[in-house]
Parts: sequence; structure tokens; C-alpha cells
Amino acid sequence: MSRTVHTAALEPEAFAPFGEVIEAVGEPDQIINRGMCGRYHDLAGLDFTGDGARAGISLFQARPRALPYELDMMERHPQGSQAFLPMTADPFLIIVAPDACGAPGTPKAFLTRPGQGVNYRRGTWHGVLTPLHEPGLFAVVDRIGDGPNLEEHWFEEPYIIQAP
Amino acid sequence: MSRTVHTAALEPEAFAPFGEVIEAVGEPDQIINRGMCGRYHDLAGLDFTGDGARAGISLFQARPRALPYELDMMERHPQGSQAFLPMTADPFLIIVAPDACGAPGTPKAFLTRPGQGVNYRRGTWHGVLTPLHEPGLFAVVDRIGDGPNLEEHWFEEPYIIQAP
Repeated sequence: MSRTVHTAALEPEAFAPFGEVIEAVGEPDQIINRGMCGRYHDLAGLDFTGDGARAGISLFQARPRALPYELDMMERHPQGSQAFLPMTADPFLIIVAPDACGAPGTPKAFLTRPGQGVNYRRGTWHGVLTPLHEPGLFAVVDRIGDGPNLEEHWFEEPYIIQAP
Repeated sequence: MSRTVHTAALEPEAFAPFGEVIEAVGEPDQIINRGMCGRYHDLAGLDFTGDGARAGISLFQARPRALPYELDMMERHPQGSQAFLPMTADPFLIIVAPDACGAPGTPKAFLTRPGQGVNYRRGTWHGVLTPLHEPGLFAVVDRIGDGPNLEEHWFEEPYIIQAP
């Protein structure tokens, strides 16, 4: 079985099984501020479970990676969705996988365009945050709360994520 | 009375009466992903009131402005905090004011550094979103819900916001 996965451009349709692409495309839902601003409204399905769990804003700063990228682990958060909003215009790498009996199935990899973020649906297998450029800075909207909310799966043999 | 307001660099202490500066400074609260990522945890006081109100992620795309900027109106959201997270590294202009008997008092203006976002506390008087560069794209975490959540105040004479 090939362990090579080629990246694709991030598109909402292909990403839909895993969550939402957060981007400003097409006509805005509302024009506000006397015509000076478009609002693209409520783009992510925030979903947090567990006693007292709530949405919060954190920042993640991650070291840039490069392609080809060796994917040896994926993780998921059973108690909450997780949105990544880049604070620069640089593309970043997104890796997700369907669930296959409690482990990640074959991964899919996407490269974002400037202005695209993502929201991983609760329980979605995904790779750790992989910017491709400095400073690797992202706003993250995820679950704030107690209790275990991380599952990791290590592959016996890594996948290699490559450009198309 | 002077109607000129000079911008200052955005610093958490000066901004504290109005909300939080969302930025990755100092040591992260957690190191995750085997040392590859720092998490600056739960940086904003999200606060939404009213039946069924909840946090949501929207995108705002606003036309860039320039300094000097004529401030003729400020607004506030009595039912919710509002966070602005720039999706580019460009600085933007922030204008806030203390409340003075139901109207904005003398405004304060701040210029962000790359990597800084803000969260306006619920009910804080602020100017509309004023990027200084294209594409003027921001992720916004604010209140999703019904009911009136906008108050506007128009100044008889505008303030002029200027560089220091």
C-alpha cells in the first residue's frame, strides 16, 4: 500500500466530511459599517461537550515544516471542535483522516490559500498544526474545560505528504 | 476642546479597561506537539448574554482606511464581547472609549503590531473595523443570537485620529 499522500488545494466540498473551511468567498451575508465591511456570518460549527466546557480563544505558535512531510501521528479531540485561523497570509498544511474503527483511515492533505482557516469537527482525526512559514502563528477557537480531550494514534509506518 | 487623538502602540495595560490584547508574548502556557508548538491559553473573556446566545466565528472583510482618520461614530454591543483576529500580519487601527453617561467619552486610539488581535469587552464603545491595508480580512468571534445588540453614537463634531 502506498504511504504517499499528495496535497490538494483546500476546497469546502472535499473538506466537508471533516469540518468547515472558514473563508470569505462570494457575497457576504451582511454589509455593515455603511458599506465599508462585509460580514461572512457564523462559518464554523462550534461544538463542545463535557461539564462546564466552553469556547475560548488561544494562540498557537508552531515551528514551520516543509514538504515532503513525514506524518507519524494523528490526533483527535473527542470533546470539542477546533478552529485554526492563520494570523498571516501564508498557506499552511492541513491533514485529516476519516475514522476507521477507532484509528485514522487513509489521510487526506490540503494546502490553504491566503485567507483560509478551518474548523475541525469534534472527533475528527487531524495532524498537528503544520505551518510552512514563519512565524507559524494561529488563533485557535477550541474547547476550554477539564477532562481528557486528546487521543493520539501513532502509525507503524509514517505517511509521506508531498506536493502534487 | 481638542478633537485630535494620537495613536499609541497597543499594549495590554493601556487596553485593559476595554478588553484583552490577544497576542503570543513571553513563555507559552503549554508546549504541545512534542515541543513543536506553544499554546497561549484562553486569552479572551468571551461573554454573551440573551436567550440562546452563543459564540461563533465569522469573517469580516473591510475596506482599508488611512491616517488621519475621521471618527464620526462609535458603537457598542450590549449583549456580547467581540474579538478581532487579523488574518494578515498588517497592523490595524483600534479606537475605543470609556462610557460617559451612555455615550462615548474621549476616544483612545491604538495601532497593532503584527500578531496582535483584540477582544472588546461586552458593552465597550469602539470604532468600526479599520484596517490600514488590503485585504482587510479578520476572523471575528462574537455573539450569534437574536435580539438587538448594536448601539451607535454619532458625534456632532468628528474626532481626528492621527499618528503620534
